[in-house]
Amino acid sequence: MSSLVVIGLGLIGGSIAKKCRELQIFTQVIGIDNNPETGKFALQNGVIDVLSDDLQVCQNADLIILATPIFAIKRFLMQLKDINTKAIISDVGSVKQPIIESAKVLGDKFANFVPAHPIAGSEKSGIYAVNSDLFVNHQVILTPDDTEVRAVGIISEFWKKLGAKVEWMSAQQHDEIFAATSHLPHLLAFALVDSLANNDSSLDIFNHAAGGFRDFTRIAASDAQMWHDIFLDNKQSLLAALEMFTADLSRLKEALIAEDSNFLLSCMTNAQTARNHFAQILQARNKSE
Amino acid sequence: MSSLVVIGLGLIGGSIAKKCRELQIFTQVIGIDNNPETGKFALQNGVIDVLSDDLQVCQNADLIILATPIFAIKRFLMQLKDINTKAIISDVGSVKQPIIESAKVLGDKFANFVPAHPIAGSEKSGIYAVNSDLFVNHQVILTPDDTEVRAVGIISEFWKKLGAKVEWMSAQQHDEIFAATSHLPHLLAFALVDSLANNDSSLDIFNHAAGGFRDFTRIAASDAQMWHDIFLDNKQSLLAALEMFTADLSRLKEALIAEDSNFLLSCMTNAQTARNHFAQILQARNKSE
Repeated sequence: MSSLVVIGLGLIGGSIAKKCRELQIFTQVIGIDNNPETGKFALQNGVIDVLSDDLQVCQNADLIILATPIFAIKRFLMQLKDINTKAIISDVGSVKQPIIESAKVLGDKFANFVPAHPIAGSEKSGIYAVNSDLFVNHQVILTPDDTEVRAVGIISEFWKKLGAKVEWMSAQQHDEIFAATSHLPHLLAFALVDSLANNDSSLDIFNHAAGGFRDFTRIAASDAQMWHDIFLDNKQSLLAALEMFTADLSRLKEALIAEDSNFLLSCMTNAQTARNHFAQILQARNKSE
Repeated sequence: MSSLVVIGLGLIGGSIAKKCRELQIFTQVIGIDNNPETGKFALQNGVIDVLSDDLQVCQNADLIILATPIFAIKRFLMQLKDINTKAIISDVGSVKQPIIESAKVLGDKFANFVPAHPIAGSEKSGIYAVNSDLFVNHQVILTPDDTEVRAVGIISEFWKKLGAKVEWMSAQQHDEIFAATSHLPHLLAFALVDSLANNDSSLDIFNHAAGGFRDFTRIAASDAQMWHDIFLDNKQSLLAALEMFTADLSRLKEALIAEDSNFLLSCMTNAQTARNHFAQILQARNKSE
């Protein structure tokens, strides 16, 4: 008898649970969620086998996955400290260093903790968006610290079964990269949409929103609490990325004021070249699948 | 015998020409483009009936559409000044006030000039992306100045035949709205992609680009020269929108430094509410079609 406990039945946690049930990787998939409606929906729609509100179910688990927003992950790590379990513990948080720091509270069990980040977010969130193929061909990044190699191997195989491509890097490198590629773009999108919504002509603006703005609003539709936690927890790397961006934006603004065509064109051509390079990476990635 | 002259066979000009041929609105569709390859492709692929390199073809035209980047639109307006034509003249530029200013050079013919902006851009550009259904259900904004009502009516009907929904507003209002909803988001996308491409870890960044960043790179793939012209020509409104945005971004940064959860959450919740409101507008728009 093998058992998986998923704590937090949002888009990510729910999709993990559902796929594990479909693949019958575990004899039992147990779900925990602080929202009774969410838990009920998960149970009734075959996302989990058992709904529980008692962390003691973790005692007999083989694998525990923390899939709540980051601050709640930290709270659950505190609580897991006092539970007697040999389970491998993993998470799905978008910022790794602070979670690893918090996980040290686990003591001996820290050797069984495998920090993980599946890159499979979406502007959709919550149990109703659950999709058991969410991770297929998506990257999962593992940032093991003082983790037993055996535990890392098991989590690596686990994610491959769910269709993901697994990669390892240091938690610091992870946090810096995602500050730039994910957290900063989300911060800018939230800021722009909020800024325009507060504008006197916001109705006109929304009525005539063109292509560029639509993409921003799509990004800004993401879960507020989740991003609140990410921004605060990756504050240092995010502020560094923001600093770099605002310096560059400010140079672009000066070039605009000075009507410096060469500067403007070279900036935009650079961006296009980078985009084309990026499109090739994506294409190569898809071909290798 | 009725004749359309399209100057500039990019995505917009080419798509107009192709649709007009398909609908047989004119007896003859004449194309002009400074790139011989583009002209040849347009001729060989049924986008136009006749390729010309001589603006004198405008003498006998019924309708002339300027579909080049903005600075070239202004150059062509200068040249049209000296051509003896009774044609209605229109354009597709994304900034209206400076084009109207330039069009005053037309003298008597200014009464036949109908400033227009079809909202149908795409990150794709050029003749190879031509699509005769590009304007179906898209907005076209007319910003008539001292234009004869008859000319505005004809252009309005023209765009409706191409499937577009036509709206009128003042050129000033147009330029302010699009500074916020289109030009600023594009400026931010170009700035972010350029900024990250120049970063020491740019390879890592592009290799791990997550959802948010992908949307930015998509925006930044747009034509550099076209956006260069737009940014410079709508400089004043764009700088005002940028000013407002950077002030809001700076407040968000301070809140992040101070770890002011309430401020962060309220900003992001606002953005989400605005996004939901926007999604409803889009839905209503689609239903009414």
